[in-house]
Amino acid sequence: MIYTAITRGNRVTSFTFSRQLTIEWGQCDPAGIVFNSRFFEMFDSSTWLMFQAALGVRPHELSTAFGIMGIPLVDVRANFLKPIKFGDVVDMSSRVSEFRRSSFDVEHHLSIDGALAVEGGETRVWAARSKDDPEKVSGTAIPSDVIAKFGQA
Amino acid sequence: MIYTAITRGNRVTSFTFSRQLTIEWGQCDPAGIVFNSRFFEMFDSSTWLMFQAALGVRPHELSTAFGIMGIPLVDVRANFLKPIKFGDVVDMSSRVSEFRRSSFDVEHHLSIDGALAVEGGETRVWAARSKDDPEKVSGTAIPSDVIAKFGQA
Amino acid sequence: MIYTAITRGNRVTSFTFSRQLTIEWGQCDPAGIVFNSRFFEMFDSSTWLMFQAALGVRPHELSTAFGIMGIPLVDVRANFLKPIKFGDVVDMSSRVSEFRRSSFDVEHHLSIDGALAVEGGETRVWAARSKDDPEKVSGTAIPSDVIAKFGQA
Amino acid sequence: MIYTAITRGNRVTSFTFSRQLTIEWGQCDPAGIVFNSRFFEMFDSSTWLMFQAALGVRPHELSTAFGIMGIPLVDVRANFLKPIKFGDVVDMSSRVSEFRRSSFDVEHHLSIDGALAVEGGETRVWAARSKDDPEKVSGTAIPSDVIAKFGQA
Repeated sequence: MIYTAITRGNRVTSFTFSRQLTIEWGQCDPAGIVFNSRFFEMFDSSTWLMFQAALGVRPHELSTAFGIMGIPLVDVRANFLKPIKFGDVVDMSSRVSEFRRSSFDVEHHLSIDGALAVEGGETRVWAARSKDDPEKVSGTAIPSDVIAKFGQA
Repeated sequence: MIYTAITRGNRVTSFTFSRQLTIEWGQCDPAGIVFNSRFFEMFDSSTWLMFQAALGVRPHELSTAFGIMGIPLVDVRANFLKPIKFGDVVDMSSRVSEFRRSSFDVEHHLSIDGALAVEGGETRVWAARSKDDPEKVSGTAIPSDVIAKFGQA
Repeated sequence: MIYTAITRGNRVTSFTFSRQLTIEWGQCDPAGIVFNSRFFEMFDSSTWLMFQAALGVRPHELSTAFGIMGIPLVDVRANFLKPIKFGDVVDMSSRVSEFRRSSFDVEHHLSIDGALAVEGGETRVWAARSKDDPEKVSGTAIPSDVIAKFGQA
Repeated sequence: MIYTAITRGNRVTSFTFSRQLTIEWGQCDPAGIVFNSRFFEMFDSSTWLMFQAALGVRPHELSTAFGIMGIPLVDVRANFLKPIKFGDVVDMSSRVSEFRRSSFDVEHHLSIDGALAVEGGETRVWAARSKDDPEKVSGTAIPSDVIAKFGQA
């Protein structure tokens, strides 16, 4: 596994972003638990905040700071282990589990009192508009100093 | 009141847009009723659809068709008379209650089995970017043929 | 005004709950500004948090602590003075502007760098299920010690 | 593969539920495309509607009709192949790709003009409250006539 990672140039990072959330009434469904789409709002927000914490660049300045269009999602998933209810205090931690040339994976863990409740995963692209055709968006190389700021395992 | 309306050039319209909605699980809160923010999604959507029905212009083409930035909200309100629950079939009707020079009011009524459950009201601006400063957005005169298509009382 | 308030038993409160929010990507629309329904999520959440701050009771424990069904909205409104964009840091303050026998009004103010951007208002009921018919929910007297904890002007 | 399916009692179904959606302003983000959490609202809603179409039972009556607590998600994922924009007309089709004893997988496909734009997948449990402890929820056998109504490949 390590060998593959080295040859493909993949990099696992050690930087972890954590925050605490208290579940709101409006995030819950008639079963009294968080409606699943709300977790994807939390994932998205934590990814932006993690970049801010690692790079010192605020979310709405990320595209300008790095000359990119953004960091669009290509794949996202969640695994629900325990229900999370209105009023629950959730410890959420997020990290880039792998940087590739122009895409990266983010892992999110949501726990209550130390027990893992939800696991999330995102695959995103470091995307720029084509110089020839601004309508065309494609992955571009993630700067090495961006990756460096997330630390390396 | 009528006198004021005439002198100010206000116009009440007769065009009504109706649609039927079935309340979804994810729109409801732990009390099993629609969470209030969801009604504002319904209002917004019905306003766009009403313009499409009256003008024959699809929502995402409205700004291009009329050379405007959009129809931003300046004021919105809702009055909850009866709770609306998961699975309820809602009859929603919307109309422009008044056109002014560069702004207009929309009324939304949501009923279940003929009983009014929610009343909503929006005040929106027919807004364009300033030619001198594209960052500046302000109200501009609503074309008379737009108003005409909503009919007149 | 004071006289009316005394005779009608209305009470204006001085307790103010404040919090700071940073606008998220997912809260914004294609115009790059907060989509209006999102403000009603913020209002709802701040009202719960204000009760927690004033009463020391967490949101999901409010109904049990006071033997009520909840504090359902009967009326809500917002007035948009300035657009709020992705990344904006918003100072939000909320207060009960008036307590009546079984209902109350909440005022929300959202400002950016000291400039008021959005005003919101909610009217809510202190609601309990009928002892005779649990399906029936109606307003019940707000305990005087609840009102006292919000302070009096 | 077939052998495994038979021995494990898995059943692939042929019933497909389709609907058409037009993307709303409030579902889109500052990039002008659908914000990812919105797809999970569409998935959830289509799953309920698919059960209604297959079983003739309306969403809010499903739990009563089958003596279950509901069909909670344990796993969900989406794969974004093409951006979906404000005003896009989306053809969405959903099917149960596999029924197991007490859980099942749903596949969702969203296409624009015949081109696949988003693939989604849900794993849900046919869940009932324990007779001994109503707080405890666990998977229970999916009735064979429920599975039969989805048809068999």
